[in-house]
Amino acid sequence: MADIATDTDFARLMDTLSNWGRWGTDDQLGTLNLVTPATRVRAAALVRDGVTVTCARPIATELTADTTFQTLRFMVDSGEGRDTCPPARALERRGASEFIGMVFHGYTITHVDTPAHFFWQGKIYNGRSCNLVTSREGAQVESVELLHDGIVSRGVLLDVAAGRGRWLESGEGVMPEDLEAAEAAAGVRVEPGDVLLIRTGYYGRRLAHGPRHPLRDGSPAAHVACAPWFRARGVAMLGTDTHNDVSPTTHPAVGHPLHIACLVAMGLWLIDNCNLEELARACAARKRWEFMLAIAPLRLANATGSPVNPLAIF
Amino acid sequence: MADIATDTDFARLMDTLSNWGRWGTDDQLGTLNLVTPATRVRAAALVRDGVTVTCARPIATELTADTTFQTLRFMVDSGEGRDTCPPARALERRGASEFIGMVFHGYTITHVDTPAHFFWQGKIYNGRSCNLVTSREGAQVESVELLHDGIVSRGVLLDVAAGRGRWLESGEGVMPEDLEAAEAAAGVRVEPGDVLLIRTGYYGRRLAHGPRHPLRDGSPAAHVACAPWFRARGVAMLGTDTHNDVSPTTHPAVGHPLHIACLVAMGLWLIDNCNLEELARACAARKRWEFMLAIAPLRLANATGSPVNPLAIF
Amino acid sequence: MADIATDTDFARLMDTLSNWGRWGTDDQLGTLNLVTPATRVRAAALVRDGVTVTCARPIATELTADTTFQTLRFMVDSGEGRDTCPPARALERRGASEFIGMVFHGYTITHVDTPAHFFWQGKIYNGRSCNLVTSREGAQVESVELLHDGIVSRGVLLDVAAGRGRWLESGEGVMPEDLEAAEAAAGVRVEPGDVLLIRTGYYGRRLAHGPRHPLRDGSPAAHVACAPWFRARGVAMLGTDTHNDVSPTTHPAVGHPLHIACLVAMGLWLIDNCNLEELARACAARKRWEFMLAIAPLRLANATGSPVNPLAIF
Amino acid sequence: MADIATDTDFARLMDTLSNWGRWGTDDQLGTLNLVTPATRVRAAALVRDGVTVTCARPIATELTADTTFQTLRFMVDSGEGRDTCPPARALERRGASEFIGMVFHGYTITHVDTPAHFFWQGKIYNGRSCNLVTSREGAQVESVELLHDGIVSRGVLLDVAAGRGRWLESGEGVMPEDLEAAEAAAGVRVEPGDVLLIRTGYYGRRLAHGPRHPLRDGSPAAHVACAPWFRARGVAMLGTDTHNDVSPTTHPAVGHPLHIACLVAMGLWLIDNCNLEELARACAARKRWEFMLAIAPLRLANATGSPVNPLAIF
Repeated sequence: MADIATDTDFARLMDTLSNWGRWGTDDQLGTLNLVTPATRVRAAALVRDGVTVTCARPIATELTADTTFQTLRFMVDSGEGRDTCPPARALERRGASEFIGMVFHGYTITHVDTPAHFFWQGKIYNGRSCNLVTSREGAQVESVELLHDGIVSRGVLLDVAAGRGRWLESGEGVMPEDLEAAEAAAGVRVEPGDVLLIRTGYYGRRLAHGPRHPLRDGSPAAHVACAPWFRARGVAMLGTDTHNDVSPTTHPAVGHPLHIACLVAMGLWLIDNCNLEELARACAARKRWEFMLAIAPLRLANATGSPVNPLAIF
Repeated sequence: MADIATDTDFARLMDTLSNWGRWGTDDQLGTLNLVTPATRVRAAALVRDGVTVTCARPIATELTADTTFQTLRFMVDSGEGRDTCPPARALERRGASEFIGMVFHGYTITHVDTPAHFFWQGKIYNGRSCNLVTSREGAQVESVELLHDGIVSRGVLLDVAAGRGRWLESGEGVMPEDLEAAEAAAGVRVEPGDVLLIRTGYYGRRLAHGPRHPLRDGSPAAHVACAPWFRARGVAMLGTDTHNDVSPTTHPAVGHPLHIACLVAMGLWLIDNCNLEELARACAARKRWEFMLAIAPLRLANATGSPVNPLAIF
Repeated sequence: MADIATDTDFARLMDTLSNWGRWGTDDQLGTLNLVTPATRVRAAALVRDGVTVTCARPIATELTADTTFQTLRFMVDSGEGRDTCPPARALERRGASEFIGMVFHGYTITHVDTPAHFFWQGKIYNGRSCNLVTSREGAQVESVELLHDGIVSRGVLLDVAAGRGRWLESGEGVMPEDLEAAEAAAGVRVEPGDVLLIRTGYYGRRLAHGPRHPLRDGSPAAHVACAPWFRARGVAMLGTDTHNDVSPTTHPAVGHPLHIACLVAMGLWLIDNCNLEELARACAARKRWEFMLAIAPLRLANATGSPVNPLAIF
Repeated sequence: MADIATDTDFARLMDTLSNWGRWGTDDQLGTLNLVTPATRVRAAALVRDGVTVTCARPIATELTADTTFQTLRFMVDSGEGRDTCPPARALERRGASEFIGMVFHGYTITHVDTPAHFFWQGKIYNGRSCNLVTSREGAQVESVELLHDGIVSRGVLLDVAAGRGRWLESGEGVMPEDLEAAEAAAGVRVEPGDVLLIRTGYYGRRLAHGPRHPLRDGSPAAHVACAPWFRARGVAMLGTDTHNDVSPTTHPAVGHPLHIACLVAMGLWLIDNCNLEELARACAARKRWEFMLAIAPLRLANATGSPVNPLAIF
């Protein structure tokens, strides 16, 4: 880890990881270029049991210790009293609908981060100016709408928590050796185009012991030291069961080193706040840690991400 | 169609279609019970090309002729001026995020309807009281959260617009004979557990000629006369490129007969406002109108639906 | 207090207080009928110093212990980076604006309650059905829009906290004898058409010691035993520095007895969550507890209230 | 008008109008410094009839031709079916409340603009950087919260539409000579500390003929040529029944010259989209165009304005 101990070293790491120009100067997809028809076909071939498993958390409106922005659900129409509704109004009174509102970035909702979600020295992935993400227009480049056809590829779960036999603690980072140990235990090797899911147990802990605030109370995550490993293996997308940066931060002058290394340098799209509990059980039960994975972001114009419900298909 | 020409006949139709009790008195899933591990495995076997195609429309914030509730996107943080941000604030200034808000039911956003979205004589699917859908709690039963593990099955596109060589007009209903003609043309037969997608061309018309308001200007849809056909074939979920009811309504005293027949009587979940344009081209190019389909609703607690981006996988 | 110790007695109290029909069967204004041109002229005559004092709390977006729904403020346009904005965009880049969203009812925002905000045995003020307050249309009667021309009258502050020399405690109710003691101390008598403001010190405590949740942690308020006194004196509108019901409730089967007695029986509009700290100091400094008061609700169509900033004018 | 015909001349006008530094380098109130205790006392002395008149438009949720952002009202709780509510739920079922959301800047809602609402060459009033109005924090200076104690002063209505005997047309600007003619007709002279209200009839036209979009269809307003007159007279706040800039713009390279001249150069706070119809009738009936005026912005932290309901008190 010596090579990223200082902020100067972090800048050097950013250079090492850079995918800027790798897929052309116009590229906005970053590592998602590694997902090909062939990877999708191989992924579909993994379906044997016909069982699907969510990798998303429920979305609720309650205020909890990890809420930064409250999720809203208000009924435009409800069904209350409609059984006794005056006949004259019956026609317009046969449906219920709702408004939903959310800041999906945060610590509770499972969501995709596009490369436009983070900046480094005024730039986003592929060297564009962060000024292209404006208050009025939103993300004019590297928007989630690029993923209109979704992400379908092989998913691989590396269950680091299971490997250690415990939940990772606040401030604890998953290291490359953890990933390789999990690969060995699972009998699987992460390959180009894979969507890598890493389980620290953070969400399991939340279910068992209640919510905590990642910034105030700390959280585990993949350590930024894994970034070169992700690049070497050709990870197309990374999801973990945390907000995807160790807290307290390992790099005080950088803040969110994993976000910046992945999103800005590599164009490696992230899935934050996954729920990998049911998935871990499904994998363990089958002794199989690879599966078809389908991720279908909403087609939000000019957005830096989307809430998602990634589906593992066994 | 003589048998549903009157409202008395509509009530009789509701009896005929009823799936209440078919999967037990506690059932909330309705026709989604027809999707089994076996149907999912067969669906995955359809993946040959490794190509995915969205069935969703883009979600935009503009006010258009078919807007009932404006979709909101506001930036919590933007990137503007962050390239010249004072160093002291640099750390907290490295990300962009947004609030999104929407009433996804309506005429523009591709979304799932749960059975709790419509009532008939004070009841929702399986005989529950519509009073269970309250302003405070939302849909306490038959909520979209039931679909946490998503819907993966075979999708079948019946391209009625292609069969007729034209877009369907306002007030025009797709009839069972249209469906069977489209089956014959496609060389496919809709079977139990399928997600049926019907293309009227309504969204293609919107792309070509601009938005119109379904209630004011009319729209095509599957006619309620197809409901017995859906039941006979075991359709698990129905999506079309309209809001899923012919307008002006064929049954003035009922209002939305297709919604009520599908959601209330059959527990047949709907996908409204699909975009089937790219899908139609993808099917025609392959001369194959069946595919693996993955639908991943957001895990919204107590909601009568969810925006979705259904993915066809060839 | 013996006469309202039980719920049967509460029902009897409701009868005693009733203003239903007092100003006609069509009336929606309730006790605001007591504000007349003459009361307004007398109120204006109280202006001597030309000093105005807010009776509202600041509206903030932070989550605090007394938040039930988070207040939203998102910028539609900001000024960031606009000093270095490319000239081509300069024209469209000269303004900043925001979205605000709130559930003003609750425990933090100073707001007016209309009589439509509470029901009793299925009725709102003047015997209307609570079914007139619908999810789709909102308050079809007794809406805050009735107050389009605002409320201008004499305001009287009864500073019960000052009289007791301490903040009132959770669960503690202001009693009629407290009001009369405060009148005597202030040398003022509450008269028909007055807007009565009662200070318990609850908001001062919040400023000094931080927020608490009224339902979980308790709060003081005017006790429902004051309701007959309000009626006898002709109070036109009542504001206090709490959410206007003692917590824990004095009447478990009723829940919010003061709201129900005032809003439903009397048509006495309320102002919840006032800030009376600056006002109390302004009154004490002048040894004058009466003043001109102007309240200007937003003209929200079909709403059960409005956030307000009541202004005392000395 | 020759002196502001060109953009160079506009820059010179800005210099001429500048109040930067006039009330100190820390000042944020601008022309509101001209409202003093003495002006408030004189204003209160104008109250003779005890009649109040709103200067605000109703706030509705409908989409109209002049909507840019839809106003939201959703019920958190409604009264529907509560008359037949099961007893077990009765307690929690006795109230109705709503969420409201809006972008009050725009063309339909009566609202205050703070000086932070517009920039000129990267600066807001008193020479501050527009970078102080950020997406995350909002208006860190010159926020509407500065007006926590409201604005109470003399209001003067100059009814230019009445003077001309017709509504002003799109693109037509009120000129200084119109103001002086209206003064003469009203027998009133605008003096330091007054809130000046100018009626063009634009809102009356909307009520009579329906909404139009100011930018697409044009609108009248006070012409920027009036700005020196406002400064000479000591206008403390300016409200009109339009969005406060002539459209199409008289200064294409500037865009909104009146906003910029008033807000940025003078620190002259604006009230946009007033309703002066009832006020004009109230003035004409009394042959008196001066009155006490109370404006009570919501105490929104870090906001560039607030919806308001200004009250004229006769």
